[in-house]
Amino acid sequence: MTYQTDSVKSWVPVPQNSDFPIQNLPFGIFSEPGGHPRTGIAIGNKILDLRVLSLAGLFSGPGEPHISVFESSTLNSFIALGKAYHKVFRNRITELLSAGNNEMHHAGLSESAFTDRLSATMYLPVSIGDYSDFYSSRQHAFNVGSMFRDPDNALLPNWLHLPVAYHGRASSINISGTPVRRPWGQVKPADKEKPSFSPTRMLDFELETAFIIGRENGQGNPIGANEAEDYIFGYVLFNDWSARDIQSWEYVPLGPFLAKNFASTISPWVVTCEALEPYRVFADKKEPEVLPYLETQGPCNYEVELEVFIQPENGPEVKVSHSNMKHLYWSPAQQLAHHTVNGCNMRIGDLCAGGTISGPEPGSFGSMLELSWRGTKPIKMPDGTTRSFIQDHDTVIIRAYANRLGQRIGFGEVSSKVLPALPATAFPEARPN
Amino acid sequence: MTYQTDSVKSWVPVPQNSDFPIQNLPFGIFSEPGGHPRTGIAIGNKILDLRVLSLAGLFSGPGEPHISVFESSTLNSFIALGKAYHKVFRNRITELLSAGNNEMHHAGLSESAFTDRLSATMYLPVSIGDYSDFYSSRQHAFNVGSMFRDPDNALLPNWLHLPVAYHGRASSINISGTPVRRPWGQVKPADKEKPSFSPTRMLDFELETAFIIGRENGQGNPIGANEAEDYIFGYVLFNDWSARDIQSWEYVPLGPFLAKNFASTISPWVVTCEALEPYRVFADKKEPEVLPYLETQGPCNYEVELEVFIQPENGPEVKVSHSNMKHLYWSPAQQLAHHTVNGCNMRIGDLCAGGTISGPEPGSFGSMLELSWRGTKPIKMPDGTTRSFIQDHDTVIIRAYANRLGQRIGFGEVSSKVLPALPATAFPEARPN
Repeated sequence: MTYQTDSVKSWVPVPQNSDFPIQNLPFGIFSEPGGHPRTGIAIGNKILDLRVLSLAGLFSGPGEPHISVFESSTLNSFIALGKAYHKVFRNRITELLSAGNNEMHHAGLSESAFTDRLSATMYLPVSIGDYSDFYSSRQHAFNVGSMFRDPDNALLPNWLHLPVAYHGRASSINISGTPVRRPWGQVKPADKEKPSFSPTRMLDFELETAFIIGRENGQGNPIGANEAEDYIFGYVLFNDWSARDIQSWEYVPLGPFLAKNFASTISPWVVTCEALEPYRVFADKKEPEVLPYLETQGPCNYEVELEVFIQPENGPEVKVSHSNMKHLYWSPAQQLAHHTVNGCNMRIGDLCAGGTISGPEPGSFGSMLELSWRGTKPIKMPDGTTRSFIQDHDTVIIRAYANRLGQRIGFGEVSSKVLPALPATAFPEARPN
Repeated sequence: MTYQTDSVKSWVPVPQNSDFPIQNLPFGIFSEPGGHPRTGIAIGNKILDLRVLSLAGLFSGPGEPHISVFESSTLNSFIALGKAYHKVFRNRITELLSAGNNEMHHAGLSESAFTDRLSATMYLPVSIGDYSDFYSSRQHAFNVGSMFRDPDNALLPNWLHLPVAYHGRASSINISGTPVRRPWGQVKPADKEKPSFSPTRMLDFELETAFIIGRENGQGNPIGANEAEDYIFGYVLFNDWSARDIQSWEYVPLGPFLAKNFASTISPWVVTCEALEPYRVFADKKEPEVLPYLETQGPCNYEVELEVFIQPENGPEVKVSHSNMKHLYWSPAQQLAHHTVNGCNMRIGDLCAGGTISGPEPGSFGSMLELSWRGTKPIKMPDGTTRSFIQDHDTVIIRAYANRLGQRIGFGEVSSKVLPALPATAFPEARPN
């Protein structure tokens, strides 16, 4: 039995324009004050405590997970149950929360199974083994190529043939709300002969979404492009913090390293593939034609609005970008097929980010590098200041939502405040210059 | 009490030229047939079962680890005990195994605490969170730059100023003995207009050593170059399998990805910093002078002989390279200081490989790419065949040892056999061309 959920309402109050109606049901790891981290589902301004429902026997039936799955501080063991069970589970949650269903009331759980979402503490939703970052927005690659290389040959020769990607750092991925400290590093301005050591002067965000691996392929076993979606559990927002001056000095020939690995930030709620199903769109037509292992049938992208806000300290949020997930030239399915075509093994919880998603208009670019065109067109803020890059004490917020025929599926947000760099005295042996 | 171990002998028989005398005492994860993986120390042709000694109370005293540390299938929890305890523990093992010590005999453990090393199964010694790969041999960087760019400007501008590195894939790191399957991928020969899809024709090894992180720094906390060694538990051998044709097509601008992440192979025994202490040497003088955060005092490299062998199927091993760990221009301490100068956080078990270690002579180059100079100087094998790159059914073996004044500290070996690529039918949708 699959619920036709478009018109379903929940007996749980869901404010208008909430990111989390009963059609969404994203998974996360939460705790209430004084409690232990465990699994939950967001609905309206509440979090449904899955452990409580499990204890009450409300998930009994074939494939019923052990209670430890819901007491875990990561979603990995829930994800490992597999997509077939995830669908059963989603149907059951939909059933329990649908208007007219009284099972939770009869069990005395209509209030005690919920935690207030806005006062809960959220954690990294999964234990991330490996994190890869793609470079799959054509406009972004074009913009960067234009600025750093040549506008007439902005896309490198391989870009239209394969989803370019690199490995990133898993240890420094933080949950939304964690501040990010401005990093020190080597920089070398073009007019200087030698590099110097300083805090980055070009701290940037990158507007990205990321998918979480839901099924293992095993080393040596490529995943076909048309089966790739079976290996994806869901999506989060991803801010791939970047230090552009460190990046431009270090990245040739092995790619970005210290310019990126000081911090990335992800949103706490994993929006499942099932919730995003109504928002599928076709990706751009591939010209030149791609190699057959990258060909997909049907619409493999999603139409999801993406917004970036900068909030100066003690000031209001200012929207600086409005992009869309559909601007990924390479779809998640193509990314995953490419990533594994050589037999590279994916583990449950692995994260693949799609790269900065820039749309065709300047107001839809997904990084300050592009929005300010490398600092040549600073963004004017309402308080009279300008931004070429991100300043200390600024908070950067990314929000996202799909919206079609009045049905909104939101991602919540990923938010992080920038702290000033460590003082020079933090490098006692290093005598920064 | 610290043992002066140079002249210590063990009551455990240690064959002449063994990699594992009582002065070594490397840690690994082993099982005997039918047993569970657990922690052990190699000595001669035996493995000392640490769980058995713990059960017998032979580690009692301040800081005595819980038995679960020795029953673990990774070394992470032992490593987490910290360097101060590791020194106490090393002394205690040295004491127990020294000629004249009868404690194990009195406990009835002089045989039952040991497993035959050559029939044991070995496992990945640590759970690896993140794996980074440096590019720290000057000769290797020069060779690659000469072949792919310009011999007169072989080193890129940043190379002498910072230890270039990139993030690699942790999931596909295998223990010695695991075969590696020749990967498929996109390749584009220079004389072709479009890329094609085929098994790599340029499968290569990379002769590397890697260090294992022994202490966490916490995000935002740089590790100074002169304290960096406190954060290193020990060293393993590392074969960073590489597909050169895939690499040259994909690596600009974000670095190697599918050319590397199908497999890497590490040796099972972690040789501790303490065991390598007598083999310290100074790194090459840095010209130009490095930034102060990369300056180190004292000798921070190690003199360790490195050898690579190719064994064709049913044939004898053929030594194809003899290099030395001292040829790292950037020492492990400098690598770690650089990696964390931006606050990047290291976790226990993280792996940092140093990159291909090539010496100054052609016979000391650390990859087939260099040894055969991109295929232009194939290596002649005794069976009359030649090798430009690695062929199906070849086994590649790396061995290493430090040797000074007759005292040998060995690493054992990392060995892996190459299996043929998957058949084209493994890509049913992809119609390989």
